[in-house]
Amino acid sequence: MQNRVVAGIDIGGTNSIISFVSSKGEILGEIKLSTVDYDIADDFVDDAASAIVKLCEQRELKLSGIGIGAPNGNYYTGSIEFAPNLKWEGVIPLAELFSNKFDVPVRLTNDANAAAIGEMLFGGAKGMKDFIVITLGTGLGSGIVVNGKVLYGHDGFAGELGHTIVKDSNRLCGCGRLGCLETYASATGIVTTMKKFIAEQESSEDAKRFEDNTVTSHSIYVQASNGNNLAQKAFEYTGEILGKSLANTVALFSPEAIFLFGGLANAGDMIIDPVKRHMEANMLNIFRNKVVVKRSSLDEHQAAVLGAAALIWDILSR
Amino acid sequence: MQNRVVAGIDIGGTNSIISFVSSKGEILGEIKLSTVDYDIADDFVDDAASAIVKLCEQRELKLSGIGIGAPNGNYYTGSIEFAPNLKWEGVIPLAELFSNKFDVPVRLTNDANAAAIGEMLFGGAKGMKDFIVITLGTGLGSGIVVNGKVLYGHDGFAGELGHTIVKDSNRLCGCGRLGCLETYASATGIVTTMKKFIAEQESSEDAKRFEDNTVTSHSIYVQASNGNNLAQKAFEYTGEILGKSLANTVALFSPEAIFLFGGLANAGDMIIDPVKRHMEANMLNIFRNKVVVKRSSLDEHQAAVLGAAALIWDILSR
Repeated sequence: MQNRVVAGIDIGGTNSIISFVSSKGEILGEIKLSTVDYDIADDFVDDAASAIVKLCEQRELKLSGIGIGAPNGNYYTGSIEFAPNLKWEGVIPLAELFSNKFDVPVRLTNDANAAAIGEMLFGGAKGMKDFIVITLGTGLGSGIVVNGKVLYGHDGFAGELGHTIVKDSNRLCGCGRLGCLETYASATGIVTTMKKFIAEQESSEDAKRFEDNTVTSHSIYVQASNGNNLAQKAFEYTGEILGKSLANTVALFSPEAIFLFGGLANAGDMIIDPVKRHMEANMLNIFRNKVVVKRSSLDEHQAAVLGAAALIWDILSR
Repeated sequence: MQNRVVAGIDIGGTNSIISFVSSKGEILGEIKLSTVDYDIADDFVDDAASAIVKLCEQRELKLSGIGIGAPNGNYYTGSIEFAPNLKWEGVIPLAELFSNKFDVPVRLTNDANAAAIGEMLFGGAKGMKDFIVITLGTGLGSGIVVNGKVLYGHDGFAGELGHTIVKDSNRLCGCGRLGCLETYASATGIVTTMKKFIAEQESSEDAKRFEDNTVTSHSIYVQASNGNNLAQKAFEYTGEILGKSLANTVALFSPEAIFLFGGLANAGDMIIDPVKRHMEANMLNIFRNKVVVKRSSLDEHQAAVLGAAALIWDILSR
């Protein structure tokens, strides 16, 4: 008998991955395509479709659906809309392009929403109906699950926690505004903070330990782990801003848990401890000591495709 | 034939109102009880139940359910939990107490959630699935509707927009923390702002025009309407803080509309104009000029009971 799979597609600016995911979250095959080599999305879909058909034949897999996680992906329209990091400009109806090739359900959403559904079906949020997944990468994405369903809102763009303004600030965000949460709480944000701290204390030993390094979220983590106070202060400050923002977010959503995911979350307790501490210190009393904050339990390299595939498995299992 | 009605009960610290509401939102009878006269909730329920039975008999009404809007009401438990403005202390299982008397569905929620369901069934949000109702009274309450249902969250307490912290501030909130939105954007909040402005410019003509008055949200409105710049500035400042907060709220929920309700909303454009202006000025580009902000279309004196009754009519109509 053929194994039923969903093709989970993770669209990245440079590369895209197509994984064939069983209902239990096992990956039974994988294809990699160089997104950046395709000037036109139609050509990308042509090649992806051929590769999907071929791999399904080879491995005797039965395709039950296609789930796509993409930057600026809109679930309602199935389109990628004005994604700054992709060559494909304007509105790309990617779900429709795949639907024209395959007679199976096709769904598309943004990366953070896919991560949230992945967490619910295959990760730490199994059995939960109200939780939030926050991706701390170059930016800050959030997938918010309310009553077992991803919150899309009226036009499909809900869940932009990274673009809530948290401070009167001169930190310019990619969105053109000042002081968005993601200018503080992201891999990029902690680098900005670290550079500021270094500039303020440039004659200190701790600042000098960065002199020969490029400042990256990883180097800040390594320095902090080795006792660099200034680097530890950068994590503390980042955790404070994110923790305060999460206290407000909890007041609105009353989630059971918040999962942190992505580059900065890999710092583990170095970031999670200050986040929890400042969240609890700023929490409305009725929510205190109730909301779990922890790392995503999904493997970082598989989460995007698992989340994309979960979009379809979630529908098929209802 | 008997008219089918739902008893919509608005529990207030001083008085409670029980209205008999048809499926179309017509009020076919009303009872008033003095909440403050009852030391024990059971006695209140005894008298309320007798009065309901009697009025239904007199007017030939068929009772189809009981909906209750109450301060600190928890939908999941059907209880009033530690309401600071009620004599009844601790946890009061009010829905259960009424269920023991009547063989009809009984539901309870907080005032702002009831207002939101009322707006959806009988007011300006008819046909909408994603919207927010904000009550600007002594405090700031919010009822958030996601995909046609009130957002309750994991433990029934979601939607506490009034208790999101919006400023590093020394304004003490009733919840014990500093800088909550409701310390700025509420009838109480604008009075605090006005007093601060008066103190800062006590020798100005505009400040002196308040000298013989007690400063209330109504007197600020009257002064602002009569051209008092300082009073207008208080509305501008209140609108700025609420507008910025709503821009963040839109980024999370992507609502179709936001309805303002209660004392301060009665100032009409005086408050709504600055709210809209600052919301749009701080809005993430994908949401700009999309979200309607307007006053609730429900009659202020009927909204609470209509909302409470709508809790049940919403269930019966599904």
